[in-house]
Amino acid sequence: MLNRVRSALAHLVSSGGAPPPSPKSSDLPSATAEPAASPEAPKSPPARPGSRSGAPAKTTEARASFCRPTFLQLSPGGLRRADDHAGRAVQSPPDTGRRLPWSTGYAEVINAGKSRHNEDQACCEVVYVGGRRSVSGAPTEPSQGQGLCFYYWGLFDGHAGGGAAEMASRLLHRHIQEQLKDLVEILQDPSPPPLCLPSTPGTPGSSDPCHLVGPQPCWSLQKEVTHDSLVIGAIENAFQLMDEQMAQERRGHHMEGGCCALVVVYLLGKVYVANAGDSRAIIVRNGEVIPMSREFTPETERQRLQLLGFLKPELLGSEFTHLEFPRRIQPKELGQRMLYRDQNMTGWAYKRIELEDLRFPLVCGEGKKARVMATIGVTRGLGDHNLKVCGSTLPIKPFLSCFPEVRVYDLTQYEHCPDDVLVLGTDGLWDVTSDCEVASTVDRVLSAYEPNDPSRYTALAQALVLGARGTPRDRGWRLPNNKLGSGDDISVFVIPLGGPGSYS
Amino acid sequence: MLNRVRSALAHLVSSGGAPPPSPKSSDLPSATAEPAASPEAPKSPPARPGSRSGAPAKTTEARASFCRPTFLQLSPGGLRRADDHAGRAVQSPPDTGRRLPWSTGYAEVINAGKSRHNEDQACCEVVYVGGRRSVSGAPTEPSQGQGLCFYYWGLFDGHAGGGAAEMASRLLHRHIQEQLKDLVEILQDPSPPPLCLPSTPGTPGSSDPCHLVGPQPCWSLQKEVTHDSLVIGAIENAFQLMDEQMAQERRGHHMEGGCCALVVVYLLGKVYVANAGDSRAIIVRNGEVIPMSREFTPETERQRLQLLGFLKPELLGSEFTHLEFPRRIQPKELGQRMLYRDQNMTGWAYKRIELEDLRFPLVCGEGKKARVMATIGVTRGLGDHNLKVCGSTLPIKPFLSCFPEVRVYDLTQYEHCPDDVLVLGTDGLWDVTSDCEVASTVDRVLSAYEPNDPSRYTALAQALVLGARGTPRDRGWRLPNNKLGSGDDISVFVIPLGGPGSYS
Repeated sequence: MLNRVRSALAHLVSSGGAPPPSPKSSDLPSATAEPAASPEAPKSPPARPGSRSGAPAKTTEARASFCRPTFLQLSPGGLRRADDHAGRAVQSPPDTGRRLPWSTGYAEVINAGKSRHNEDQACCEVVYVGGRRSVSGAPTEPSQGQGLCFYYWGLFDGHAGGGAAEMASRLLHRHIQEQLKDLVEILQDPSPPPLCLPSTPGTPGSSDPCHLVGPQPCWSLQKEVTHDSLVIGAIENAFQLMDEQMAQERRGHHMEGGCCALVVVYLLGKVYVANAGDSRAIIVRNGEVIPMSREFTPETERQRLQLLGFLKPELLGSEFTHLEFPRRIQPKELGQRMLYRDQNMTGWAYKRIELEDLRFPLVCGEGKKARVMATIGVTRGLGDHNLKVCGSTLPIKPFLSCFPEVRVYDLTQYEHCPDDVLVLGTDGLWDVTSDCEVASTVDRVLSAYEPNDPSRYTALAQALVLGARGTPRDRGWRLPNNKLGSGDDISVFVIPLGGPGSYS
Repeated sequence: MLNRVRSALAHLVSSGGAPPPSPKSSDLPSATAEPAASPEAPKSPPARPGSRSGAPAKTTEARASFCRPTFLQLSPGGLRRADDHAGRAVQSPPDTGRRLPWSTGYAEVINAGKSRHNEDQACCEVVYVGGRRSVSGAPTEPSQGQGLCFYYWGLFDGHAGGGAAEMASRLLHRHIQEQLKDLVEILQDPSPPPLCLPSTPGTPGSSDPCHLVGPQPCWSLQKEVTHDSLVIGAIENAFQLMDEQMAQERRGHHMEGGCCALVVVYLLGKVYVANAGDSRAIIVRNGEVIPMSREFTPETERQRLQLLGFLKPELLGSEFTHLEFPRRIQPKELGQRMLYRDQNMTGWAYKRIELEDLRFPLVCGEGKKARVMATIGVTRGLGDHNLKVCGSTLPIKPFLSCFPEVRVYDLTQYEHCPDDVLVLGTDGLWDVTSDCEVASTVDRVLSAYEPNDPSRYTALAQALVLGARGTPRDRGWRLPNNKLGSGDDISVFVIPLGGPGSYS
């Protein structure tokens, strides 16, 4: 995430500072009870009965040093090579080891020197969701048929340190697991979800539809809620709880910075793509591109940011104005008329320049140079609780949102062939590669392999990473067209949608 | 706008109440100086030199009674027939009179009894924009080539009285004219618009590009602003100034209620469609539908409304909660878990019911029954400054936005045939007619006329209104399929995009 956080990072305050206002009242169901360990305890939640997840239970000490995804199975020597900015060797899971679920392909490469370590992280897991614990405290042990499995892929693009990305890669799927626990039976029942449930999650049979309090005709208006929207709500709340856990634990673990999060959940025939940040997911199906996410930047979220600054001017201090101007105003221009945009506007108009218009605009710049408060170039993600405006104590977090946009793709509505894939990439890929270029690389690489060769998806991920990195030439990493390749960390998942993997 | 404003309307307070917080600081350029007459004076702005607009300069007394668009040229007897809920005769401009610009077709019908008068209003004008007045106070008189003309169509769907719709139909294009005055030369100059202008709009030559202060490299980041976005900004600010004028003048004129506004501006080869409310515009081109607007309702704007309630809880009083629930919660359900959505969520999740969740949800209901504060079913428009929650003094206006969404269609990018049209309709049309049904009516009606017959567009507008109204049968107005027709006011413009009209 090259240059995403400007020089303000030097001013990061690793302790102190009030936690940002939480958008969620404290009475909401909390999933952090288990996964959110106290600052003194290891952060991995205790292994749960029936869990098939192989998430490592690393200690705090191990996490404090540089690490890469465990599925890469890197030896100490391999870890050193992965950390080498000069060679920028592309890393993938070994051919010899256990394959990733669905024969998922993965490749990554470290940046060209912008940060000490690779600040991207990745996770790929199969997660089992059992029922809630009973009142006796003993976990209910549903048979395999009663619980739910979801497949999970996550890409986390860290900034201002790798701590947030690493924590999210270990724990976000646990939060999703926790949020889905209430829904295990509801999601498997084809009737509409109950609008109201008995009081205690731990009450025996609480997720038994027979015990559910059905809709009551107390009010003429009653919304229908779909099963999909429950999964979306679970993912949204998991992101928020992950972010709250980072806020709570950042002091104990010296965790600075934040991360973008792009997450895929496959559950009961549907693919849920949740994005908070500037990573991107696309489906390439029969050669055609289907966008599965959009990027959240100061430009795409300008009106949300300006509205917040307008409604809560105290968040702007005396340094910033919520109005947008096409360039910085000079003091000598006072009284002249400058183009501006207010939070309600998509067009521009002229206004007379007043004294307070000389403040720095909350949102400025274009494209990769767009910034919130002259500091950060992404507007959604996890962490960043310590981020302050350069040379100021003004916190930036209130303007950042941890909520993802979730898109749903029904895998059963189309007969997929082995060349249909879902591609996830951090911005290191997309900064230099268009959707269409990815689609043609998909075609070129996959057609060179047998359709049932499971290694073809890793080969594709490697080709995508290599194509974005380029080769060292003329004092830089360059693409075949001689343009600069990406000097950022680059990470790519290739998830086959109709390949040899079994999706049961 | 049937049932859009519930019983709370009986509680409308026609005087008193603080003006709503304005989203625009008072130092913004004001266009109301001229068009906004004092409460004692007639509201039509003084005729401007060079103006070709035929806007009627009605007196306050005339406006206090029922009126229809002047282009209908209704006699007193015709006005009575147009006001007859039993007959519901379709009204169109007479064949014998002056045609509307571009041979635009228009038709309307009164509602089936839901309000005393037809609360829709319409306007169709050609408006000339000259330069600003010079410092001497005398208007600059540019030659025809220096000024700008725009074509203008507006549909205004009133609620809780016809006052706001009638005022908007007389004045909104004047506000747009006023906003465009600064841009007359800039829009005709192909070079990028200047970012900064000299101080006084009235300074001689202030809109002469030679006198403009060009971009200065004081800041490395500088946005490019397009000509289109200046027109969009002008339209957006015109809507806001119209709304502010309604706030200022409502006491003197006993003007209650509000209105949706759907406006089309044709300027320099481009069509700008601005919508605030639940009217709709579509282009039917070569039989294909191109949506040119979207509707703003409590459902489509749920997250904006909830965010405002969350950030400004004082706007909710003690009666409302910003959380959304799928139905009203009963006191006996306290402690149980209910589905909810917070302002950041698109999915649903369960939460434990607390005491304050028993408050009424800020947003409730679905489809045409969706309401803000249990009162109003549209979330954008003009007016409504007096609207209060039923049985309460809580104002609703802060949750309503007067800002339109503006879409641009470049008329020069496609060679249009005489059957390509832009159709504008109030919700009375769209409640019972789909986009595709409109497209097939376009095909059916226009193919029955010669391509150069200018009356074909009025015939089409009439057919659309009749098709939505239906015929009286079985104690109601019914469509051929025996479903209920629209009992609402219905108004339709049909604007030919490649017909016999001259767009110069």
